[in-house]
Amino acid sequence: MKAAIFRGGDIVVDDIADPKPAAGQVLVRTLACGICGSDLHAAKHAHNMVEMSRRVAGRIPMDLSRDIVFGHEFCCEVLDYGPGTDKRLKAGARAVSMPVMPTGETRATVGYSNDYPGGYAERMVLAAPLLLEVPNGLPSDHAALTEPLAVGIHAVEKAALQADDVPLVIGCGPVGLAAIVGLRLKGVHPIIAADFSPKRRELAGLMGADIVVDPAQESPYGRLPVGKRAVIFECVGVPGLIQQVFEAAPRDARIVVAGVCMEPDRIEPFFGIVKELSLQFVLGYTPEEFARCLRLLAEGKVDAEALVTGKVGLAGVKGAFDELANPERHTKIMVEPWRH
Amino acid sequence: MKAAIFRGGDIVVDDIADPKPAAGQVLVRTLACGICGSDLHAAKHAHNMVEMSRRVAGRIPMDLSRDIVFGHEFCCEVLDYGPGTDKRLKAGARAVSMPVMPTGETRATVGYSNDYPGGYAERMVLAAPLLLEVPNGLPSDHAALTEPLAVGIHAVEKAALQADDVPLVIGCGPVGLAAIVGLRLKGVHPIIAADFSPKRRELAGLMGADIVVDPAQESPYGRLPVGKRAVIFECVGVPGLIQQVFEAAPRDARIVVAGVCMEPDRIEPFFGIVKELSLQFVLGYTPEEFARCLRLLAEGKVDAEALVTGKVGLAGVKGAFDELANPERHTKIMVEPWRH
Repeated sequence: MKAAIFRGGDIVVDDIADPKPAAGQVLVRTLACGICGSDLHAAKHAHNMVEMSRRVAGRIPMDLSRDIVFGHEFCCEVLDYGPGTDKRLKAGARAVSMPVMPTGETRATVGYSNDYPGGYAERMVLAAPLLLEVPNGLPSDHAALTEPLAVGIHAVEKAALQADDVPLVIGCGPVGLAAIVGLRLKGVHPIIAADFSPKRRELAGLMGADIVVDPAQESPYGRLPVGKRAVIFECVGVPGLIQQVFEAAPRDARIVVAGVCMEPDRIEPFFGIVKELSLQFVLGYTPEEFARCLRLLAEGKVDAEALVTGKVGLAGVKGAFDELANPERHTKIMVEPWRH
Repeated sequence: MKAAIFRGGDIVVDDIADPKPAAGQVLVRTLACGICGSDLHAAKHAHNMVEMSRRVAGRIPMDLSRDIVFGHEFCCEVLDYGPGTDKRLKAGARAVSMPVMPTGETRATVGYSNDYPGGYAERMVLAAPLLLEVPNGLPSDHAALTEPLAVGIHAVEKAALQADDVPLVIGCGPVGLAAIVGLRLKGVHPIIAADFSPKRRELAGLMGADIVVDPAQESPYGRLPVGKRAVIFECVGVPGLIQQVFEAAPRDARIVVAGVCMEPDRIEPFFGIVKELSLQFVLGYTPEEFARCLRLLAEGKVDAEALVTGKVGLAGVKGAFDELANPERHTKIMVEPWRH
């Protein structure tokens, strides 16, 4: 089958072996797969990511000398099941799934694994029990937003907001926008959001931010009401950002780190100490949160149309990686491997 | 009056102007004042501390070109009051106090201020309303432990322990030992503690640790029971320590940073992210926590005798700063400015 492959530090389209579903697995056809900022990070900092994964127990580092197919935000169509596997969804049914493959003692992430190609390929093998059927009427490219939406919803859950907390979202890329959706659905007001990009600020408002600030014009921290606890969502994920928040945050602020920074970072703990700041690093989501996000999309609670800003075939993946550096043009680009 | 002064990067004994209490203030005689690790840090990283204080709103940076008298863990005797001040405690009464001096819009810290010399001087001026009388029978050098004990008690309160959380205290200096006391008084078991020093490990057991580990022999993280949330108290406060905890901590751990690191630090956020760690930086204590610690000492709930490992006069302060680098010899050295 055809795939856009991460090979030798580059993205190339080539044929790879057709995946074969084993017991408990399902073979699917990829209908749409979003390009995630983490894929851009992984491509840019691949060696760093591998080296760090080696140092965390229970993680399977990728072997960069072998092919990897990224793509973990997908909607797919059921084709066939492995031997002895419960055929819960019929062939032809559309589904989404957490990109997780249980592998004995540990688990692989579909899309960050040498063994389980992700959604930048025509077909994938997934864990059959994890499939969630996509309700009729929800387009496949919107259903593929389930995963990135769940990341933001999870960040909001981990924030453990209390009455009177005021959220500030720093960075309105897909993660920040999903966090804004999560905050809006919780009924929190005001939601303050900040991004340098006019396009992203517009989307922040569309997703539910009450106050949207251009940090080039004014400090978003100045909008935080005095006497209430600030909960700051760091949704950028580049070195220096945590320290920036450390310096600007008010006393007792809670910082939810949802941006995935793959590089070493420099902080001055003094600022955290004198202001008694707290940090909560977050990653992923629970199965319940994932399922809830599919329902939210199906019920039209999220303006999915506004978030999907581009579509490419496999040949367009490499260019899309470059395009995504420009926040004016794109929020979420969908890869449709069947598109020619 | 005589004082051990931080002057030109060194500690020197010299005469300084006698402090005069203004309205709302009380003149006291210093009976005992503990040497705090923060004083050692402040002496070593004075310029860094000043530069960072400038960057935090509401803090008054010290002027290093002028004299500073450290010492914020004191027990004292009331001498006289400023004009128009409520003479709540009689002259001759013994007292402790939070080392805080309200100064208009902001507040100074007694012992880290050019204007309010701390307890390494014969006399001090304090805020009269903050004095807490020391109960009869509690020796002055034990009462002076109120402040460092409150630091540990506060760290335990900020940890917001839940049933089944298992605490691990990294570093059993005065802060770590006070945290162990706080954990014991909360009835938490097991309390795991780690320090490279045999003497400190002995004190950790004496203060209430159930499992005491020499990290040179085994990883203290290996003692954390599987399936329970770890709450790790970082009570060392040197660069690299947070990253060390990041790498060793189990998934979902909560890290309470009670060590005061005055230097820039390097972290790899990746470890925080993939394990969804949380950090709570802590500093100081509330007035209630401070008052509670005086009561705990008066009630004999803390083995104060074991913690006070040395006493010096003003001439001995400089040497004591050097001595404290050796964890085998000393935990808390008391400065008794009246001692010759």
